[in-house]
Amino acid sequence: MSDALRIVLVSSRNPLNIGAAARAMSNFGFADLRIVNPYEVAFQEARSAVKSRYILERAQVCSTVAEALEGATLVVGTTALGHRDLHAPLYRLETGARLLREHLTGGKAALLFGSEKFGLSNEDMSHCHWLTRIPTREAHGSMNLGQAVAICLYELKREADEAARAEYPKAEAAASEHLERLTGVLMELLTISNYAQERTIETTELKLRRMVRRLSLSQHDAEVLLGMMRQVLWKVKQAPPAEM
Amino acid sequence: MSDALRIVLVSSRNPLNIGAAARAMSNFGFADLRIVNPYEVAFQEARSAVKSRYILERAQVCSTVAEALEGATLVVGTTALGHRDLHAPLYRLETGARLLREHLTGGKAALLFGSEKFGLSNEDMSHCHWLTRIPTREAHGSMNLGQAVAICLYELKREADEAARAEYPKAEAAASEHLERLTGVLMELLTISNYAQERTIETTELKLRRMVRRLSLSQHDAEVLLGMMRQVLWKVKQAPPAEM
Repeated sequence: MSDALRIVLVSSRNPLNIGAAARAMSNFGFADLRIVNPYEVAFQEARSAVKSRYILERAQVCSTVAEALEGATLVVGTTALGHRDLHAPLYRLETGARLLREHLTGGKAALLFGSEKFGLSNEDMSHCHWLTRIPTREAHGSMNLGQAVAICLYELKREADEAARAEYPKAEAAASEHLERLTGVLMELLTISNYAQERTIETTELKLRRMVRRLSLSQHDAEVLLGMMRQVLWKVKQAPPAEM
Repeated sequence: MSDALRIVLVSSRNPLNIGAAARAMSNFGFADLRIVNPYEVAFQEARSAVKSRYILERAQVCSTVAEALEGATLVVGTTALGHRDLHAPLYRLETGARLLREHLTGGKAALLFGSEKFGLSNEDMSHCHWLTRIPTREAHGSMNLGQAVAICLYELKREADEAARAEYPKAEAAASEHLERLTGVLMELLTISNYAQERTIETTELKLRRMVRRLSLSQHDAEVLLGMMRQVLWKVKQAPPAEM
C-alpha cells in the first residue's frame, strides 16, 4: 500500500461513487483519500466493499481544496474537457501517469477529481500544476467518477516496474501549503500596491495562484521567496495608503 | 463507434453496474452489449447516462453464453484469480489488450465479465480462447464490475505508442534579458526593504539571480511578474526610509 499518492474528491454528490473510488484505491494499493466539501450526506452514506472499508474509515473530510493538498508537492487535476480555457498544461493520461509515477519515486502527489456534474471548478484547477484527461471520445467525454478514478489508478500501476528507474536526484519540490502561503503574501502585496483592484481581485488571485504553481519551486526556493516577500510586505505597509 | 468488440455481461446482479458498463462503452466508442441471464430485474432497472442510453436500448438479453457469442471469432474471459485451475492461458491486461487489438483489426471478438459475486464460472470460461486479468493487488483482487469494464475498454483504446506529447503547447521560455530585468527589480525591492543588507548584498544578488533562473518562467509569466513587482516597488518607494 502506498501513501505517496493522495486521491482528492472535490464536491462529490454520490455516496456510491465515493465507495467505488475507495474500492479502486484498495484494488491498486493506494490508501490516502481526502474528500472536499461533499454534498450533504454523500460521505456519511458512502459504503465500500469490506476489503476497502479501512480507506473510508481513515479518509479525511476537508472544507477547502487547499486543506486537502497539505503535504503534496505535485497537484494534478483531472478533466474531461479539451484544452480550451484550461490555463494549465494538459496531458493525456498515458503521459500524465508517466509524469506522476516519476514524481512519486521521491515525492508526494495529489490527484483531484471534481463533482459528477461539473468536474473541477476554475478555482480548483488553479491549485493544480497540470491537468490530465482520460482519452474518451469527444462526443461523450464525461466519465462516471468511480470509473475515472479506477482508470487513473490502473494506468499508474500498469507495468509500473518499467517506469521505476531512478532519475537524477531532484531538489525536493515545494509542498502545496507553502505555495499557497506564498500566493497569499504576494496577493496581499498586490492588493496593498493597487495592482489588484477591487473588481479584478478574484481573477488576479486565480492567475497568481496558477503562475506560482508553474514556477516549479523547490521547497528551499519557496521558503526563501516567502521570506523575501514578507520583508517587502512589512516595508510596503509603512507606505501611506493609496489615493483612490 | 465500433461493433468489432462485443461486451458480454454474464449473470450480472446489479442494474447500476449494467448502466455503468454501458456508459464506459459509450465513453470509449463501443456499442455492442449482450447480457446473459441477468438476475431478476437487473436489466430492466438498468439506467445509464443520457448519452449511453442507446447502448442499453439495443443490448440483447440472451439465455446462454453460447448465444451471446454468436459471430465472435475470438472469446476472451476476464478473471480476478491467479492462474490456478484456470485451464486456459491467462494474460495480464496490458498483453491481453494488445492481442485483442490485433484481432480486432480483422475479426470480431467478445469480452466476457462474470457476476459481481462469483465472476465467470468454469463453464463460462470454457467458451474462452484465453483469459485476461487486470493487475490488481493480490490481497484485494476483485474489482467492481463497472470499473473493470471501464479499465478494459480504456486499455484497448489507450495509445499504444504513447506519443508523449502535451496537448497544450508549451509556452515560450523567457529570454535572459527579461529574467535579468526581473532580477533587477526584485533586487531593488529587497534592498529598499532591508532584506539585502550592505554586507550581504552581493551574495543575495547571486542567490536571487540563480533562483530566478530556476523558476522556468515563460516569457508571458516573466512579463506579468515584472509588472507586479514594479507596481510593488512603486508603492514601497512611498514608505519612509528605513532606520539604519
